Amino acid sequence: MISRDELAEFYALYTEALDDVRLEEWPDFFTEDCLFRIIPRGNFERGRTLSTMQAESRGMLQDRVTGLRRTQVYAPRYYRRFLSNIRIVTHEDAGARVRQNVLVVQTLIDKQSEIVLCGVAHDLVVRNEERLRFRERVIAFDSEMIPNSLVYPA
Amino acid sequence: MISRDELAEFYALYTEALDDVRLEEWPDFFTEDCLFRIIPRGNFERGRTLSTMQAESRGMLQDRVTGLRRTQVYAPRYYRRFLSNIRIVTHEDAGARVRQNVLVVQTLIDKQSEIVLCGVAHDLVVRNEERLRFRERVIAFDSEMIPNSLVYPA
Amino acid sequence: MISRDELAEFYALYTEALDDVRLEEWPDFFTEDCLFRIIPRGNFERGRTLSTMQAESRGMLQDRVTGLRRTQVYAPRYYRRFLSNIRIVTHEDAGARVRQNVLVVQTLIDKQSEIVLCGVAHDLVVRNEERLRFRERVIAFDSEMIPNSLVYPA
Repeated sequence: MISRDELAEFYALYTEALDDVRLEEWPDFFTEDCLFRIIPRGNFERGRTLSTMQAESRGMLQDRVTGLRRTQVYAPRYYRRFLSNIRIVTHEDAGARVRQNVLVVQTLIDKQSEIVLCGVAHDLVVRNEERLRFRERVIAFDSEMIPNSLVYPA
Repeated sequence: MISRDELAEFYALYTEALDDVRLEEWPDFFTEDCLFRIIPRGNFERGRTLSTMQAESRGMLQDRVTGLRRTQVYAPRYYRRFLSNIRIVTHEDAGARVRQNVLVVQTLIDKQSEIVLCGVAHDLVVRNEERLRFRERVIAFDSEMIPNSLVYPA
Repeated sequence: MISRDELAEFYALYTEALDDVRLEEWPDFFTEDCLFRIIPRGNFERGRTLSTMQAESRGMLQDRVTGLRRTQVYAPRYYRRFLSNIRIVTHEDAGARVRQNVLVVQTLIDKQSEIVLCGVAHDLVVRNEERLRFRERVIAFDSEMIPNSLVYPA
């Protein structure tokens, strides 16, 4: 069983890595076979899988990081994540189904901070090689638009 | 005594029901006799009770849901709640006095997410029929304006 | 060892004092010798110490409060803080190194709520005179601008 405290630590470390733009660490928070998906809420609730971004292995996440490094490294903006209402929905043999609300705030160097993603994450967190990892992380965001923040992990 | 973990679970479930627009579940989070109040901070701090919204029984909350269903069901917007700094202020015979900060973010389908409510909740959470319920939930929000989000529960 | 629950309580009480504008209580959350610093993220990450605000003793914090009382007491606005991802980074002999994300939302009386500070705090929390206190609180905010909110504690 994965405890509440272990999960809080795991989510804090994940968030810190992304907030600090240590993108090279991002894929290692996922199992080798995994699902990372960012999907508009409307699609998610209708059971559709048409997504804004999807990766199905750690390798695909690594490719994504490489792409981001090439195109975005000098972008004069910061993203910061605020996770709230973290709840273990069920304990399964595989691990813990976890739900939480996600707020991503973007700050351009000389502009006011603004919300660029507001949504809910449905995760499957498992023990893997003596640590916790995401087997699934599906973020349904409250919009039909594709915010440009979604080129970034959340 | 109500534990910190029980409360975290209770608040997460409450928030999920509202975020998912399962409004029919909302009244059941309250005791039969209850107080639900949304009030401008200025009024609250001066000890006045003039409120933007008030209900004093589960039945009144049910009426509210019926009204919302009639007028709002097709409104192309989402609300999502972020609770923070949840603290048990005192344990009383009746239950736990709990304080927390509340942020409600609204997303219109094709617009940027924005904050529509920022405030503090002062609650009395009790054991009732083998589960936790609000006997009181009083949200003092940081404005003198009546945001239209307040037609919605928080 | 400072426990996770003690810390949650400490941060909630700190946030409540500031949100309620009980500024006279602010200095007492710090040890006699202390460091309170608000610094742009760019400076922080480059190891520079040029800060937007800095205080190195409880006395300096008290001076700050006196200054705020003189200039700001009638300002028709509210600040509310949302702390997220609170994590104990290390336990040291002195106390606990703690990291967390900080969001400060400002509400002017007749305007929409807006984010005025988005950043990360790096704290050293210690036991001092039978309670917890900050020996250090360093907030690196995601901007190069000096938001006017920073005249206020966070």
